[in-house]
Amino acid sequence: MSPRVALLAGGVGGAKLADGLYRALPQGELSIIANPGDDFELHGLTICPDHDTLLYTLAGLGDRERGWGLAGESWSALEQFGKIGAPDWFRLGDRDLAIHVHRTALLRRGGRLTDVNRELQRRLGLADAPILMATDDPLRTRVRTPDGWMEFQPWFVGAQAKPEVLEVEFVGAERARVSAEVSAAIRSAELIVIAPSNPLISIAPILAVKGVREAIATARTRGVRVIGVSPIVAGKAIKGPADRMLRAAGLSSSPVGVARALPGLFDTLLVEESDLNDTLIAELAPLIPRVVGAKTVMHDDDARLSLARRLLQAASDAA
Amino acid sequence: MSPRVALLAGGVGGAKLADGLYRALPQGELSIIANPGDDFELHGLTICPDHDTLLYTLAGLGDRERGWGLAGESWSALEQFGKIGAPDWFRLGDRDLAIHVHRTALLRRGGRLTDVNRELQRRLGLADAPILMATDDPLRTRVRTPDGWMEFQPWFVGAQAKPEVLEVEFVGAERARVSAEVSAAIRSAELIVIAPSNPLISIAPILAVKGVREAIATARTRGVRVIGVSPIVAGKAIKGPADRMLRAAGLSSSPVGVARALPGLFDTLLVEESDLNDTLIAELAPLIPRVVGAKTVMHDDDARLSLARRLLQAASDAA
Repeated sequence: MSPRVALLAGGVGGAKLADGLYRALPQGELSIIANPGDDFELHGLTICPDHDTLLYTLAGLGDRERGWGLAGESWSALEQFGKIGAPDWFRLGDRDLAIHVHRTALLRRGGRLTDVNRELQRRLGLADAPILMATDDPLRTRVRTPDGWMEFQPWFVGAQAKPEVLEVEFVGAERARVSAEVSAAIRSAELIVIAPSNPLISIAPILAVKGVREAIATARTRGVRVIGVSPIVAGKAIKGPADRMLRAAGLSSSPVGVARALPGLFDTLLVEESDLNDTLIAELAPLIPRVVGAKTVMHDDDARLSLARRLLQAASDAA
Repeated sequence: MSPRVALLAGGVGGAKLADGLYRALPQGELSIIANPGDDFELHGLTICPDHDTLLYTLAGLGDRERGWGLAGESWSALEQFGKIGAPDWFRLGDRDLAIHVHRTALLRRGGRLTDVNRELQRRLGLADAPILMATDDPLRTRVRTPDGWMEFQPWFVGAQAKPEVLEVEFVGAERARVSAEVSAAIRSAELIVIAPSNPLISIAPILAVKGVREAIATARTRGVRVIGVSPIVAGKAIKGPADRMLRAAGLSSSPVGVARALPGLFDTLLVEESDLNDTLIAELAPLIPRVVGAKTVMHDDDARLSLARRLLQAASDAA
């Protein structure tokens, strides 16, 4: 029997594991809890980058080569934005733009973010609409750099994540309440999975939502385990600035740093098997009850599915 | 010496004469007063079809063959709108969509419609930003058909202007005040021109804005003349439903119908020269002081410029 899984996930790396799990599990058995901290407003539109990366990846619509956005995308509107003095530092494709325009229209008509995004999922082919928003309230990650506080996307995309991050803050977290769907998904989960996403800016914002940690703690009292995949392989982030951010936070760019960044979260952590030596095992031992080696780099569809199955197997072994 | 001209104009036909006058007059001598009645909201965006047709035409960006929208346009967002259940009956191209998105963002930030649209004009190459909004307040044309009242664009585009129009109403007209720019343009005009646009749904909405008729009346007390071009040639509208609408309103589909639809407005009316016979002259005599024959069909750029020059000549002859 496959377990009911609640997956906490950020964008690219999270979406790959989400895709593997989505295919490995029967329909309806996976709930994906998307990081809300990357969401932002541009052109007056509400943009949910991590949600949309998850959506495009699961729907098979993502651009594999570019690594973000939609395949077969066109860029006419972006070019026009440049001509008319509108912001064009965030590369919105034409098909992607239509999604944000429609989402914003539905939100302005009073729609709830979770409902609106699930409707988009259904329209793009995900019948069970598995991607949930951690919260319907605004929660926005911002980072302190040597030049001061920056909103997340101007730092991540606008400045290509280059300015060093001295501090991370989740604006609105104290007022953001967990959505009913996420609360129910965690309450009914038989397994909680933490995707190989940036622990500081992809997983931490989800945990910062009031009610998420509590729901996980409650699930644990029922014996539900939390299993994660380290996003750090051979000392480096597979994608994105997680390695630099961990070091800047005084943590090591290794599974140990990941474990310390999310203290007490993991019952089991999957780490790249070639990294798994006695030193690492010894360092992780006081932090995480159980460490498992696996091939964690998801180069292609097969690797996504394999890692998902390996993870489910590891969870089953522990039960 | 060229006169300072204030031109009242709707979309396609109005834009052609506007283009001719824009090229015939020194920069800064033409103010174009756009019909606000076609403006509407779709996808939560503010769309100004007549303004944008004027803008695209004067900037040389319009699609000549299609007759509306931008040349070299792409349609990715529209296709996406269809897929995700968003309205796709109004064909927004990708570059066009970017304009509406940016305009709406600027309006939401507190921009005034006139300022926002003039900024778009400057960005797209019209240094003197000659196109003014009759009003910054919402004024929306709606039409009563045998099936009841319809908003303008759902009737005009959605139903291809097919349902018969029994009545026209300009919602918001009683609260819409003339913009300061339009008031100044009419006050300082040496000539007022009425474009060959639909009298009932392109010119009448402009005149319905509180202060426009008064400004024209004041200009007239200074000896300023109002010269128009009939949009009806050989009994038919060159484009659009003006002919059917005039007949449905109990008027003839002829320059006489145009004159009766806008009573007391014209000092001079240019009518297609091949239509100008003794009967028409006799019918128009009690309605309009002066009727002049001209080639009014603007097939190409030369014809636009020629008609503009012919009109300025006719105005000068009368002075």
